[in-house]
This record gives sequence, C-alpha cells and structure tokens, in this order.
Amino acid sequence: MRYLDISEIKAFESRKRVRLINCLTGHKSANLVGTQNSQGASNLSIVSSAVHIGADPALMGIVFRPDSSPRHTLNNIRQTKICTLNHISEELVIKGHQTSARYPENISEFDEVQLTPEELNDFKAPFVKESKLKIALKLVREIDIVENGTHFLIFAIEGVYFPQDILEEDGHLNLYKINTASITGLDGYSSPKKLGRLTYAKPGTFSNWLKE
Amino acid sequence: MRYLDISEIKAFESRKRVRLINCLTGHKSANLVGTQNSQGASNLSIVSSAVHIGADPALMGIVFRPDSSPRHTLNNIRQTKICTLNHISEELVIKGHQTSARYPENISEFDEVQLTPEELNDFKAPFVKESKLKIALKLVREIDIVENGTHFLIFAIEGVYFPQDILEEDGHLNLYKINTASITGLDGYSSPKKLGRLTYAKPGTFSNWLKE
Repeated sequence: MRYLDISEIKAFESRKRVRLINCLTGHKSANLVGTQNSQGASNLSIVSSAVHIGADPALMGIVFRPDSSPRHTLNNIRQTKICTLNHISEELVIKGHQTSARYPENISEFDEVQLTPEELNDFKAPFVKESKLKIALKLVREIDIVENGTHFLIFAIEGVYFPQDILEEDGHLNLYKINTASITGLDGYSSPKKLGRLTYAKPGTFSNWLKE
Repeated sequence: MRYLDISEIKAFESRKRVRLINCLTGHKSANLVGTQNSQGASNLSIVSSAVHIGADPALMGIVFRPDSSPRHTLNNIRQTKICTLNHISEELVIKGHQTSARYPENISEFDEVQLTPEELNDFKAPFVKESKLKIALKLVREIDIVENGTHFLIFAIEGVYFPQDILEEDGHLNLYKINTASITGLDGYSSPKKLGRLTYAKPGTFSNWLKE
C-alpha cells in the first residue's frame, strides 16, 4: 500500500491533486441540473455531487462550486428556487460531460450539447427530454461551506418521471434498465453492472442475495 | 413516462417510499466508516452518502442519520473528531452491508462481520484491513439538517492508502483495479464497468474518449 500524507498531496501539481482528490469518495452519481433564469434563458450543467438526505420529507443535497461552469446554474436556482435533476445514461455521457465547458452566460448548454429542454406539468425549470429519470426539485435552503466557498443546497423532491417498468414492486428502481451511468473523479465514466440486492441486515446471520 | 407527484409518493407504504426515494440520486458511492469511542471500542458502518466537496483544501462530506445503526459512529466521531473511510470492493459487499444491522453499542461490527480493524501511522480510528483504498479523515464541522434531523459532517482528508498501481500519471485513480463497488437505493450493489475518460470539455467541439 502506498501512503500519501496530505502534505505530499498538496505538493502535487494542481490538476493532478484535483484529479486524485476527486476520486477518493468512489464512484459518484451522474446527473444533469436544468435551470432557467428569471428571463426564461435555460442552463444545463453536470453534477456528481447529488446525495440522498432523507425519504420523509423527501430531500436531497447537491454541492455546487461557485467558481466554475455551474455558477450560472447556481445563480438561476437562487433566482427561481427550483431546478430539475436528470439521470445521465450511458448514451448521454458525452453530451453530459460537454455541459462542463465554460460557455458564456447567454449560451444555453442545451443547444450547444444538442439536448432538448422539456417543460413538464408547468414546472418552470427545463427537464432533459432525452433523460429517462427526471426529478423536479424545489430549493429548501442553501448552506455555505465557508471552508472553500462551495455551497450545499438542500432540495425537496416535488415529483419524479421514469418509465413504469423500472419501478419494482417494493419501491426499488431498476436503474440498469435505463442505463444510468456513474462518474469517477473529474472525467471517468462507468456503466454499473448488477451484483444484486441484499436482504435487510439483521444481527446474527449474514444477508443473502435477493432472488429476482 | 410515469409521473409520480410527491403527494402520491407520500401515500406509498413507508418502506416502499424509502426504497424509491433512496434510488433517485442514482448510483452512490460505497464506503465503510471506521471509528472508535474514547474508551477505544471500535465501530464500523456502511455509508452511501460520501460526497466530494473540494480538492484544496481537500474536503469531503458525509450525511449521517441519527436514528439508525450508524448513530454509534456519529457519537464516536463527536468524541474523537476523526474517522476512516474505506472503499467497499465487490468482495466486501456482503460484509459491508451486514454492518447496517442494528448491533448493540458494545458490539464491534468489525467482529460481527469478520473484517479486521487496522491501526496505521498512529491514527486513532480503525481502518479496514481488507479495503484497498482507505482515507484518514478529521472532522472540520458538523452541520445540522434541521429539516429531518440528519447531520452533514465536513471532513478534511489527512492521508490516503491505496495500491501504487491504481495511481495514473495524471493523478486519476483506477478504481476498477481494486473493484470499488457502488450502491443503489437501500440494498442494491453494482460493479461499475469502464466506459472511459473524456478529454477536458471546451466550447465549440465535443470531448473525445482519452486513449489509454
């Protein structure tokens, strides 16, 4: 085993350090955040930092960096208090990654990466038509991470769109059927392959793989 | 596409709702948090909520639920201000999942799930010997998520252990070589398979897959 102390990591060339640290949490979720500003101009940005917070109330969090491409997204959320979260499937990885390019504020990433903004049920933030799982999110609260100037935004889940056949009887969603991808580090993409689901863990005996 | 409004989801049977909402962020990182209390008794719990916050300073966040098995973990972190984060490889999925069983506080999950606590470089929280990527974390700050009683803990990365051959020249870590798994929902496990790495995204042209 190689041991890297934080002082050694700090001595790495800047991009190398960023790549390494971004890999440490493991494989990350792959989503596109859709927003529009108060004038109706749309924006789309990739995030790997969506995290489950709770099921009742249904909440999730997203870490946003202010100093990078998604800053237009953050501004739009502050204006409108809503956004959409859209799963990136294997087929959408190249277009999704491309939203991280530094486009000017008046340019819509939807146009530039050739994805289609979609309005659903009068929700005033654009969904990604090509995405197979889309979530309407309402801002609950913004928490400043003063340690590095990032922002942790807490959202309430307002509604969810997905193909009926991915909903299993017990509520679990089969994300393999819609090819939801994952992200590693800054630029690595994976297709998660099923190992299985495990039974509820109880003391005294190991869980088993669920029969499906 | 099926549309489920949050009011419909709330009407689901409780466990069904929890399973569904837990799947919405997509595939999640799979880690074990190692702690010990001020008397030296060790604890181990699975988390799918580790999220990258920043590279300089090197920070990550973890959402903890107070009302579930990891509460001993949370108490230990509050006492000692440190913990370890250990990647769950495919081979460790069943043992890792088993740490979510509700063991009494005086029982070490290391013993119960047959994983080996390891002390490294005098860090006073136990690493998982069998894990191939392990991180020493120091608590920076605890943020209360008052909306549902969870806690978002921000940690500074103090040091990292991994096999030398997973470190690529540019700093990216090859997590396929150590079989790092991912989690979906409450109990689904996957093995992420490589799609590839994409070049840095710039306006005007699509990124390409990096030659490796």
